[in-house]
Amino acid sequence: MARPLRDRFQDHPQFGFIDWVLRGIAQVVFQNNPISGVVILAAIFYNSWIYGIACLFGTTISTITALLFKADKSLIKNGLFGFNGALIAVALVAYTSPNFTTGNMPNLHLWLYIVLCAAFATVITPALGALLGPHKVPGLTMPFVLATWFFLGALLQFSTIDVSNALKPTSPSDFTGPRPEYNWITWFQGITMGIAEIFFQDNWVTGVIILIGIAINTRIGALMALMGSTLAVAGAVFYGAHDEAIRDGLFGYNAALTAMALGGLFLVLNVEGFIYTVIGILVTARVWASLGVFLEPSGMPVLTAAFVSVTWLMLLAKGAFPGLIAVAPSDAMTPEDNLRRYRSKLKR
Amino acid sequence: MARPLRDRFQDHPQFGFIDWVLRGIAQVVFQNNPISGVVILAAIFYNSWIYGIACLFGTTISTITALLFKADKSLIKNGLFGFNGALIAVALVAYTSPNFTTGNMPNLHLWLYIVLCAAFATVITPALGALLGPHKVPGLTMPFVLATWFFLGALLQFSTIDVSNALKPTSPSDFTGPRPEYNWITWFQGITMGIAEIFFQDNWVTGVIILIGIAINTRIGALMALMGSTLAVAGAVFYGAHDEAIRDGLFGYNAALTAMALGGLFLVLNVEGFIYTVIGILVTARVWASLGVFLEPSGMPVLTAAFVSVTWLMLLAKGAFPGLIAVAPSDAMTPEDNLRRYRSKLKR
Amino acid sequence: MARPLRDRFQDHPQFGFIDWVLRGIAQVVFQNNPISGVVILAAIFYNSWIYGIACLFGTTISTITALLFKADKSLIKNGLFGFNGALIAVALVAYTSPNFTTGNMPNLHLWLYIVLCAAFATVITPALGALLGPHKVPGLTMPFVLATWFFLGALLQFSTIDVSNALKPTSPSDFTGPRPEYNWITWFQGITMGIAEIFFQDNWVTGVIILIGIAINTRIGALMALMGSTLAVAGAVFYGAHDEAIRDGLFGYNAALTAMALGGLFLVLNVEGFIYTVIGILVTARVWASLGVFLEPSGMPVLTAAFVSVTWLMLLAKGAFPGLIAVAPSDAMTPEDNLRRYRSKLKR
Repeated sequence: MARPLRDRFQDHPQFGFIDWVLRGIAQVVFQNNPISGVVILAAIFYNSWIYGIACLFGTTISTITALLFKADKSLIKNGLFGFNGALIAVALVAYTSPNFTTGNMPNLHLWLYIVLCAAFATVITPALGALLGPHKVPGLTMPFVLATWFFLGALLQFSTIDVSNALKPTSPSDFTGPRPEYNWITWFQGITMGIAEIFFQDNWVTGVIILIGIAINTRIGALMALMGSTLAVAGAVFYGAHDEAIRDGLFGYNAALTAMALGGLFLVLNVEGFIYTVIGILVTARVWASLGVFLEPSGMPVLTAAFVSVTWLMLLAKGAFPGLIAVAPSDAMTPEDNLRRYRSKLKR
Repeated sequence: MARPLRDRFQDHPQFGFIDWVLRGIAQVVFQNNPISGVVILAAIFYNSWIYGIACLFGTTISTITALLFKADKSLIKNGLFGFNGALIAVALVAYTSPNFTTGNMPNLHLWLYIVLCAAFATVITPALGALLGPHKVPGLTMPFVLATWFFLGALLQFSTIDVSNALKPTSPSDFTGPRPEYNWITWFQGITMGIAEIFFQDNWVTGVIILIGIAINTRIGALMALMGSTLAVAGAVFYGAHDEAIRDGLFGYNAALTAMALGGLFLVLNVEGFIYTVIGILVTARVWASLGVFLEPSGMPVLTAAFVSVTWLMLLAKGAFPGLIAVAPSDAMTPEDNLRRYRSKLKR
Repeated sequence: MARPLRDRFQDHPQFGFIDWVLRGIAQVVFQNNPISGVVILAAIFYNSWIYGIACLFGTTISTITALLFKADKSLIKNGLFGFNGALIAVALVAYTSPNFTTGNMPNLHLWLYIVLCAAFATVITPALGALLGPHKVPGLTMPFVLATWFFLGALLQFSTIDVSNALKPTSPSDFTGPRPEYNWITWFQGITMGIAEIFFQDNWVTGVIILIGIAINTRIGALMALMGSTLAVAGAVFYGAHDEAIRDGLFGYNAALTAMALGGLFLVLNVEGFIYTVIGILVTARVWASLGVFLEPSGMPVLTAAFVSVTWLMLLAKGAFPGLIAVAPSDAMTPEDNLRRYRSKLKR
């Protein structure tokens, strides 16, 4: 029986590596599927070929590093060493480009800088595994967050690479103006850019294509991402956040990731799991806003630290709530798959 | 044989919930006793009915969340899911009120904000349990600290809830003036407000009543709280801290909590344990001052992070010092009870 | 058979304590050898007798505290309770002295402050052991970093001890000037001061003598320290860092420590281990620069936090890379010793 297209190249002697890199790109949004990877990569290229190249480059470096150090081959083949590199490369380009939206071509110094940072992310990925593995909690994008913080701050000290205004340190100030006038653009852009911003893309079309890339592999996952971004925008509108921050997708991108992680992937999507996910989404949007205040004096960005903190805490707690059914990271493929296995277990 | 008053309502079908909430309030200062809870609640109401209501509200939300998610019933009944909510509600009201001393009545946005924050604290309480449980170290008030930091910073980004001047970010500056002239008010207010400040109350009478509430359940615990706050003031006076900061009880409230935790509760109160506690108290007062400097640029408050850090580190280290006799969190009720059990063990 | 000089006094009834203190000083750079300790202490005295006395004092307090609390005698005898105290005392003197290079004599308030801080470091050293021990990862100088941060920030709040300008909080700013003109002084001072700066000494001769002190015990270790400092300078020159920061050894001191830890001590020095070490060195130099940016708004120094973070992460990850051969902290004496044991194991 022929294997489905998505798995035909994973063990291919020549094209295998490309398959793993594409899976790496898709794993940023938890999809172990090279077709999702192709679609997401296309979405990034649609916005900016520079970011597209950076994304490919970072994923490749992280994957090659894992191969050189002979890490677990099945993890490599599933893209689990690549996704942190994908985000690192795009982030380092974004925060050093005068034009954040499309990015500027890196110079040699920056390319080499990305190589070291992406290699380091691969090296420390198993460190989090050692700490969190016994709790059956995945490392998520923490290697990306740590490595990028480690390398982004240092850039301020070097004259060969400039940093963008987005890293300008300021003192946090209270937003006390009148409640902004929101309209449908706030909602539409906020929700779609919330998806695109996961990959630092300021482009709602890119957000929509990424959502399609996710939906190819899992309908529930795509719905969850949409719900995460939507609830985050709803919370921001209800509490009266800056219209521009909402429209840029800043409230949504962490929340969308939390929604996908808790909503069916690392927890089976039953009623309790759904309520738990909604709490996680709402909290994540606030944690993003709060970490921004903590980091503002140093100018560093939040990245996906809000998603990681909330998801880690909520997954670590899972054992205390009997209504939640945990899925071990190594078994978590798609929400649909988890539901199927859970139901077949119930029947027996 | 009739159960003592303090335990008569814990399993009561109608009034049980009230008992658990009152224990939750008392558990902020480690007392598993609803009468202590009533006295402490009265102490807060004496200063401000708004804070009293907030305290009850937060404890109730956290406890209800634990019930809804079917957490361990015995933990709920002992108030161990409530105490973080108690502090969260009072903290969120305090830092959003123009008048910190008595607090201002929250608007609907803030009430809902407190609900989400208190629910989240309940959800993450077992997360710390998963990490620290194997080391027999309790989570203490870290869920309160984390959840409040997560929600307090975010408030700066929302126009519907104002924050008080207490959250104003500033650059830390060195205090080089002449040594302040301290007098008996420094000492008296510093020590009593150090107890009251645990619950964010700027009122020395409240501090005294809280101390009585503790003493109802454990004389040693109350003495330790008093010693913690006193030594913290002594250290601050010796090193020449701002008179106002001392009188506001800011040096004492973390130290008082460390004193109660290490002084007899999670370690049996023998000679080594006592010396260990004194070190912990003195260090905690400095850590409070230091974390204040670290957080000043972002404007965020220290909360009880000093107490938690020092107590965690010192409890994690306990196994290395044979003179210390550790008490597992689940067995730790009162210092007196720990001493009794330890002595009866020695006799056998 | 006579024991070699280096081990003759470890169990001596009268002079044993001196031996342990000297080992404590040497353990800052991982050398369990009192002769190395004597040479390093001489290197510090060569630069400043005040720092020499402070170093002796801090190591003594930490070691005595461990004895009083009856900690593991073999750990005490190997200097493993002393080295954090050595760094604490020198750091607290350095950051409170108008003259950073030679230090100023502490007043009574500061001496007592050092006592408490060094005692606390001893108390929390096993806390990290409890957390990291199961992963066979050593605590390194984290007790020093934590205790110094806890005590240094607090100093800003006290009028009896002044702090130096080195702790002045500023807003991080981007270094965009032209690439500095480096010359041989940049390289020579940068590399030697990188070793000296481990002990906060602004003196290249001190750096060379410390290197000799290390070489007495292990040639490979000394080479690694040299390589670490050299590669850090190379990276800083390549990326165009401030000439002054390089010459002050600021890029090198964390990298030199990472080089010694990963290069042969906690990992056997094979080809993979060597590449891993090079990555660790390059990353550490960047992490130092980045943590500096994160801490700048509060004015706090990085200390050895860069070395500890990177080394912890890379040692935690070791199990995932089959080419790396880990050495348990309790077995790690010198790179030469590790190599010998590893080779004899291969032969059998």
